[in-house]
Amino acid sequence: MGADAGPKIVVDGAEITRVRCPDVRFLMFGDSSAVEPLLAAHPELQAVSEVRHTDNFVSMEDKPAQAIRKGRDTSMWHAIGAVQNGEADVVVSAGNTGALMAMAKIQLKTMAGVDRPAIAALWPTERGESVVLDVGANVDCDERQLVTFAIMGEAFARAVFGLKRPLVGVLNIGTEELKGNEAVKSAAQILQDADLPIKFYGFVEGDDIGAGTVDVVVTDGFTGNVALKTAEGTARLIAHYLSTAIRRSFFARIGYVLAAGAFNVLRTKMDPRSVNGGVFLGLNGLVVKSHGGTDELGMASAIELAHNMVSHDLVEKIEQDVQHIYGGEETSAPLPRAANDEVSA
Amino acid sequence: MGADAGPKIVVDGAEITRVRCPDVRFLMFGDSSAVEPLLAAHPELQAVSEVRHTDNFVSMEDKPAQAIRKGRDTSMWHAIGAVQNGEADVVVSAGNTGALMAMAKIQLKTMAGVDRPAIAALWPTERGESVVLDVGANVDCDERQLVTFAIMGEAFARAVFGLKRPLVGVLNIGTEELKGNEAVKSAAQILQDADLPIKFYGFVEGDDIGAGTVDVVVTDGFTGNVALKTAEGTARLIAHYLSTAIRRSFFARIGYVLAAGAFNVLRTKMDPRSVNGGVFLGLNGLVVKSHGGTDELGMASAIELAHNMVSHDLVEKIEQDVQHIYGGEETSAPLPRAANDEVSA
Repeated sequence: MGADAGPKIVVDGAEITRVRCPDVRFLMFGDSSAVEPLLAAHPELQAVSEVRHTDNFVSMEDKPAQAIRKGRDTSMWHAIGAVQNGEADVVVSAGNTGALMAMAKIQLKTMAGVDRPAIAALWPTERGESVVLDVGANVDCDERQLVTFAIMGEAFARAVFGLKRPLVGVLNIGTEELKGNEAVKSAAQILQDADLPIKFYGFVEGDDIGAGTVDVVVTDGFTGNVALKTAEGTARLIAHYLSTAIRRSFFARIGYVLAAGAFNVLRTKMDPRSVNGGVFLGLNGLVVKSHGGTDELGMASAIELAHNMVSHDLVEKIEQDVQHIYGGEETSAPLPRAANDEVSA
Repeated sequence: MGADAGPKIVVDGAEITRVRCPDVRFLMFGDSSAVEPLLAAHPELQAVSEVRHTDNFVSMEDKPAQAIRKGRDTSMWHAIGAVQNGEADVVVSAGNTGALMAMAKIQLKTMAGVDRPAIAALWPTERGESVVLDVGANVDCDERQLVTFAIMGEAFARAVFGLKRPLVGVLNIGTEELKGNEAVKSAAQILQDADLPIKFYGFVEGDDIGAGTVDVVVTDGFTGNVALKTAEGTARLIAHYLSTAIRRSFFARIGYVLAAGAFNVLRTKMDPRSVNGGVFLGLNGLVVKSHGGTDELGMASAIELAHNMVSHDLVEKIEQDVQHIYGGEETSAPLPRAANDEVSA
């Protein structure tokens, strides 16, 4: 119920995923009088979906605390609950990020050894794709949190990108004598000195993200969120320049038509929908947050990313790594796992 | 002496500026045996330039503390000194940023009412140009510093962009309940509530920078530096996509030739050389830091930005604003001003 464009793009996105990943099944939480007719338009999707009616839903304007108060009867709460009780393997939502994180923490709980979960974003690079975390869950981060982000991001890169030894970097600036703040410097020191099974590159700067210098970029949620939004804004600025420049001349328009294939490749590469989906890492269960303003293609990307993480047992891999590294400082709550492939969207 | 490509691009850049801004005169600090022959190739430039020989110079590898130790005989030290003693109106350097800031602080001193100077960067936007500060001088910033950045950035936008009432925003993230860190929240509160002669927009996010939502973007030096470098990296990534896409097909190459004019416009717009030059604000004198890796066109942009700031009496305007707002908490050291237009590069 949380996408800006309403439940239709969620159902249509699920239909795209169904065709591409025939093993996926869906639990859909929301207003059944809105969802059922949309499903009826896709009989094959309907056959692998179950709608769970809720009277209420979280709006984009709700603060997390408000959402939680009205929460127990919302579609978001129940969708996360389906992961918690093992009915679903992963939850996908295009709704309110703060509410989703707050409800996920309450129901799924933070993984043993992890102080606070992070939001990881896929980032297109000159060499393929990298993962950047945190991009918005934690405004202030100490060195232990940053090191945990490195561990979780590394496990993500191994699982989702299929890399054996992903390269990890800590985002920093390179202009002053005493580079970076204390947290960044201490985290790098730990990653450098401690005997962690992580291939640590060292510090990277903002332009290294797009260059793909490392596979995993570690940063606090404030800086990561600003970097992500700044990159989006820069891509939009360039698209604006390009369309203005092409409209200006007749030959340019002819040229544009001839080069249409190239522009389509460019557009696909720059399409934020193709890398849609922030992943919550560090919880006892998988949560994917789609961009609220996405369409059915973006929703399908988010669901497929979710499917991909489930197929690679991402939660178990992260849990093992965190346990291995922090050596069971806390007791780990076993993660309930569903026997099937249901994705609750 | 500090540019990666050596003194030639500095002299050639000065020559470009001389043609465009005939009232500028130059003091050039460095190895005269290297600089004089370069000048000899441009007799008209030579006529308005004076070379001051120094045996030593700051290298890119020098830490600021090292640079200051060897400093008193370097070209960088003397070039800043020329602004301090009134021989020059502004200093332009493509050298080591940290050393330049450290030496500028010692010689020019921080302006009364300003805790720490900031580096301001011009940023191309969909609506023209904005100024973003700090982009690297101060890793941690409290609210008073951020408010001072707002005051200095606003004065810069009035002087350099010719705006009567520039719009000021504070860079923040928009995903969590308690947006931003304490410094950002307190700074916004002060800018909102205090009776400052500033048109305050409120918070902006990373994508608002390229959109040109505000004329002045206020941020700490860590976040600002990451944002700037991330934008550069994104522009490079898109250029990479574009050239790959065009090389892939014959029709695309033909189209590219027809649309060459449009691509040239795009290239000019995306050209980092056209907005080359970080400006140090908050000192009793003007310092422009050119990108070390720039060429003569970028150097000319930096010198012209310097010229532009001098013509608009930027230091006096900032000083008046800071004094007006902080009401003479400290005594202000009067700024020595040269009677001529000499630019020491």
